[in-house]
Amino acid sequence: MTLNLVPFVSVDSMMKLVLHLGIERVMVDLVAEIEADFRRWPMFDKTPRIASHSDVGVIELMPTSDGQTYGFKYVNGHPANMKRGLQTVTAFGLLADVETGYPVLLSEMTILTALRTAATSAMAAKWLAPKGSRVMALIGNGAQAEFQALAFKAVCGIQEVRLYDLDPAATAKCVRNLAGRGLRTVACRTAEEAILGAEIVTTVTADKACATILTDNMVGSGVHINAVGGDCPGKTELHRDILLRSGIFVEFPPQTRVEDEIQQLDPDHPVTELWQVIAGQAAGRNSAEQITLFDSVGFAIEDFAALRYVAGKVKGTEFCEMLDMIADPDDPRDLFGMVLRAAA
Amino acid sequence: MTLNLVPFVSVDSMMKLVLHLGIERVMVDLVAEIEADFRRWPMFDKTPRIASHSDVGVIELMPTSDGQTYGFKYVNGHPANMKRGLQTVTAFGLLADVETGYPVLLSEMTILTALRTAATSAMAAKWLAPKGSRVMALIGNGAQAEFQALAFKAVCGIQEVRLYDLDPAATAKCVRNLAGRGLRTVACRTAEEAILGAEIVTTVTADKACATILTDNMVGSGVHINAVGGDCPGKTELHRDILLRSGIFVEFPPQTRVEDEIQQLDPDHPVTELWQVIAGQAAGRNSAEQITLFDSVGFAIEDFAALRYVAGKVKGTEFCEMLDMIADPDDPRDLFGMVLRAAA
Repeated sequence: MTLNLVPFVSVDSMMKLVLHLGIERVMVDLVAEIEADFRRWPMFDKTPRIASHSDVGVIELMPTSDGQTYGFKYVNGHPANMKRGLQTVTAFGLLADVETGYPVLLSEMTILTALRTAATSAMAAKWLAPKGSRVMALIGNGAQAEFQALAFKAVCGIQEVRLYDLDPAATAKCVRNLAGRGLRTVACRTAEEAILGAEIVTTVTADKACATILTDNMVGSGVHINAVGGDCPGKTELHRDILLRSGIFVEFPPQTRVEDEIQQLDPDHPVTELWQVIAGQAAGRNSAEQITLFDSVGFAIEDFAALRYVAGKVKGTEFCEMLDMIADPDDPRDLFGMVLRAAA
Repeated sequence: MTLNLVPFVSVDSMMKLVLHLGIERVMVDLVAEIEADFRRWPMFDKTPRIASHSDVGVIELMPTSDGQTYGFKYVNGHPANMKRGLQTVTAFGLLADVETGYPVLLSEMTILTALRTAATSAMAAKWLAPKGSRVMALIGNGAQAEFQALAFKAVCGIQEVRLYDLDPAATAKCVRNLAGRGLRTVACRTAEEAILGAEIVTTVTADKACATILTDNMVGSGVHINAVGGDCPGKTELHRDILLRSGIFVEFPPQTRVEDEIQQLDPDHPVTELWQVIAGQAAGRNSAEQITLFDSVGFAIEDFAALRYVAGKVKGTEFCEMLDMIADPDDPRDLFGMVLRAAA
């Protein structure tokens, strides 16, 4: 009996790896990885995520391939989970060798998704936000909030985050977790207060019911909006009038038009694909006064980049264990004989 | 730190479970499970598998859900793998709770796919083959062959299998593995010899290049053909003229019309969905003379049934281990804090 062992990164190993490398370094590294893959965007197989919806949430598979490596992520989104003490979003992912179809990495992705989501946000802001931005409003202080704050510090030089959440306890948690990390945090009592003086406004809320986080009069000229929370049909965070005033940048239009803020607009409303800005094929911000909006849903190529980063970091280290996941008999035609011989 | 542990069935555990239960019993059980799910076919979310094709093979994700449980399988198909000593098909699968989106089972499925494929073939034959069939031709003696033989013995009462493969060594392996299991095996030198006297003809070949395993003059009236091997665009096993003479039964027409034998026919050529026969909504075989053809590609609901069967068998036993796959902080909004505390 021959076993084909797949390296597996558990939740515990992922946490230890991130702490070992340092969270801000991971953010900077992930931005470099994701940028590199966005630059070669046309090389990837792209398909909208495959979603299985229910009354209470969604389970999605997000596959992609660059022709050499195939990757996919399993991810759920269940807003009601939080009230039961469960994660709204959990995930795991896999890389496989296109040449053989054999898996080469299985990894937890609940933490990795939080990291890559924040890294992608900061990457977009690096290309779109006003130069020299130092203050960010962070509306929605749940599981993603601290990751966003540290990504923007590490990648964009943000020095102050102005925090607001419907639940002050979430804001307090965020202030506590960010203490001593070189960021000034300001707990605010309203969203209006949070956006005062902010060059960047990040919205990262999870509740389907709370549809309009930002109204039109709240957003001044020149601001960069990083809209992270909207990510399924019927779930949006921004009033439509803001969208009409903004230069809109997206990951993959066929997915974003269904799932995100721009589902409120005509299907042919102009949007720019972020990868084209990064590859030098499209303009980013066109003036200091323009409102830029990164209407983010999360795309498979970001997960692919993150998984490849992890694969490179864990190979041959104690940050992964080997999983007996693929049957691999000595004679490939003798699968049955392998089963029989397991008795011995 | 709280861990959310997912039961994992390794290759080794799957082999031991199958031997513990007995292969023929597993086949009979799986047919019962798959039949039960085919009877409630309309309840399932159905989508064609999501395929990522390359020059050398395909990687596919096959999701489905019955509204309570979600399942998907990762599976590759790489005909050239065998020459490198690798499996043509490897797979793993997952079940999750629709209510929370949390995974509840991760399992190897290379062996489980071999089992469920054979069980599905035998199930179809139980409904479509001539009553009292005792002899089956088995053309293609690779990794799936013995599973097919034993499924047809256990479920349909087959007593003799007539084996043929382009490579006599594959046939010899099959004869060896089936020795002492209550089946008469006859090694044949040609496909024509193999089908002599056979009421059921099973074709289960893997090579894309060998397109026509059965020609029209080889198939007499009344035979049931179990065509397992064709499973991607451009890969077929039967001459088109056989299809035109046969009553054709399929799993999920949108998938089968692209991937399997009937890709040779007009897109509106009549086919019957097997689940309708099992649910009493459509006729099966219409006469003793009819050629019936089960044009099988494998469908997500079969994997779902097989995974649920395994989940029920391994719960609380030594046939699974617990995998630290899902991050689950005490406070679901405090994912970041959980990472920080991993340092302790």
